[in-house]
Amino acid sequence: MGLHTVTFKNKPCILSTGTIAGPKESQGIVGKYVDCPLQDDTFGEDTYEKAECKMLSFAISKAIEKSGFDRGNIDLMVSGDLLNQIISASFAARDFDFPFVGVYGACSTMAEAFALAACLIDAGYMKRIVAATGSHFSSAERQYRFPLEQGTTRPPQSQWTVTGAGGAVIADRGSDVCITSATFGKVVDFGVTDVNNMGAAMAPAACSTILRHLQERKLEPGYYDLIVTGDLGALGSRIVKDLTWEKGVDISSNHIDCGEIIYKVIEDEFQGGSGAGCSAVVFNSYLYHELQSGKLNKILLVATGALLSTVSSGQGESIPCIAHAVSIERIKGVAHARKERVEKER
Amino acid sequence: MGLHTVTFKNKPCILSTGTIAGPKESQGIVGKYVDCPLQDDTFGEDTYEKAECKMLSFAISKAIEKSGFDRGNIDLMVSGDLLNQIISASFAARDFDFPFVGVYGACSTMAEAFALAACLIDAGYMKRIVAATGSHFSSAERQYRFPLEQGTTRPPQSQWTVTGAGGAVIADRGSDVCITSATFGKVVDFGVTDVNNMGAAMAPAACSTILRHLQERKLEPGYYDLIVTGDLGALGSRIVKDLTWEKGVDISSNHIDCGEIIYKVIEDEFQGGSGAGCSAVVFNSYLYHELQSGKLNKILLVATGALLSTVSSGQGESIPCIAHAVSIERIKGVAHARKERVEKER
Repeated sequence: MGLHTVTFKNKPCILSTGTIAGPKESQGIVGKYVDCPLQDDTFGEDTYEKAECKMLSFAISKAIEKSGFDRGNIDLMVSGDLLNQIISASFAARDFDFPFVGVYGACSTMAEAFALAACLIDAGYMKRIVAATGSHFSSAERQYRFPLEQGTTRPPQSQWTVTGAGGAVIADRGSDVCITSATFGKVVDFGVTDVNNMGAAMAPAACSTILRHLQERKLEPGYYDLIVTGDLGALGSRIVKDLTWEKGVDISSNHIDCGEIIYKVIEDEFQGGSGAGCSAVVFNSYLYHELQSGKLNKILLVATGALLSTVSSGQGESIPCIAHAVSIERIKGVAHARKERVEKER
Repeated sequence: MGLHTVTFKNKPCILSTGTIAGPKESQGIVGKYVDCPLQDDTFGEDTYEKAECKMLSFAISKAIEKSGFDRGNIDLMVSGDLLNQIISASFAARDFDFPFVGVYGACSTMAEAFALAACLIDAGYMKRIVAATGSHFSSAERQYRFPLEQGTTRPPQSQWTVTGAGGAVIADRGSDVCITSATFGKVVDFGVTDVNNMGAAMAPAACSTILRHLQERKLEPGYYDLIVTGDLGALGSRIVKDLTWEKGVDISSNHIDCGEIIYKVIEDEFQGGSGAGCSAVVFNSYLYHELQSGKLNKILLVATGALLSTVSSGQGESIPCIAHAVSIERIKGVAHARKERVEKER
């Protein structure tokens, strides 16, 4: 068995990000970092699906705008989302005149898109790729659970799908915040069938990818300032800490979960946030800010996804899960050094 | 605007393929080339969704078996399918212990997966990647159209979703059949809203990608023995020939469409085959055989996808489409020359 962690020697970087969050999300930690805290979760659209698509499109446009490049300088968009046939991403792609690679990793999509984009940039095939995803509480409830109008009671182990979108321009140069490696996840299924308990279902996948990443890069968990999971929620976070600890790896002091921190936890959200938009918003707003400002220097972003559908659950299947990881490190001065090298070469 | 066609200097190759097709499909041109022509389209499963997943899993296993490598030597699986949340691919991935990248490109998935796999191999990140997809008539009807039991009449412009799956092992060496370049598609929407007329909706996307590919590689259409679209069907094929001709590019003499050739066209299938399995089965069985035997030397595979969902159609949206292209060329002796070089280096 070969190594499956790809390391990037040309240091593809996260040049800029764009984020938008719903009213509930904007009350929490990301509120002061997102580019657009929404007052109205329909974003002026007549369906929640259209609102979700518009949010994703906004995040992409904003990331490109902040990169300082025109849309014509973007080589590719890598995106996906939770809706059937990833319509948010596909319809958002229609707004732009660059090629599109559709991906699906459920709530792991942000890390999957970052990983693929970093590969394509590092290899020199492209110069600037926008990677983005998002989700919407109301469209997710309708598709995966019950129509909101039904007023179904939520069990205590459930999470709250984040209304929000986030994206970034991954580029060959221009920022000190670099993607240094990527570990693509394996599908892990521990036999959990409770579709309201995604955190427990996904924790083993997160554990598997974290352990493989550290082992293959020969790193101690303490190498990272933070090991950030996507949307395990409060219960799932406890489980992933336990599972890694059982394997002799202690991540308890530097692990956080985007789902656990995104809300001021009140009764309704129970275990915290979930959805593809969860890690997309938290990373691309708050965490990216901390990396840029030097408050954080090394992050392992491990976004997790539950690869079920209503059909698979209806047919009695358990929930296969996956976690993709990307290490994101601030390498002080790399942007400046590159700029000087490029100018010298002229 | 930069060039968006990626050319591969290290010549990633298609080492082996695996294919399986339903009873109806096996009566046509692919019948004598597929590894497993099915007599029973349930494949012994109690739901069509499970049958679809099992077929995809079979194609992957068969491709790996024929590659001569163990499963432990496969670095990654790139796959997706038409079902909500790509459950066929995700559940198939559960059967294997290698990392998984989920993609979604509707019926363009085969070319998208080939393109990404070729990038990752060419860049040297991995040595062997399995790329695969499939579809099933009955699961697609249920999800996208009507339950079979309803016995709904099919309009004459409709196509028949292929029951079948195909996959390949893309490797850094070992075969003369190489992926030489890839053009990722842009989303194109000509405003077609008839969900029974996918061929017409997808033809402009195919035209866009074919023209960009030829222009960016500075090739005449006659460079290719065949320009193979995925599942435009009979009507869509006429349209793509017209559209390219209008732009001064004549592909009429060397264009074929997998959807058009897969069935012995009788009344029921109307315009021919469609579905992610269509190009996956036709390419990985029949066309790969012709490339290996030297009857064909240069193919441009342009798989097209309609990126709609029942929700987007229900909300009055038109159908955004995409086409990804990969050029697949037989470079005589490249496998042998590489083997000698590797042995010399020892």
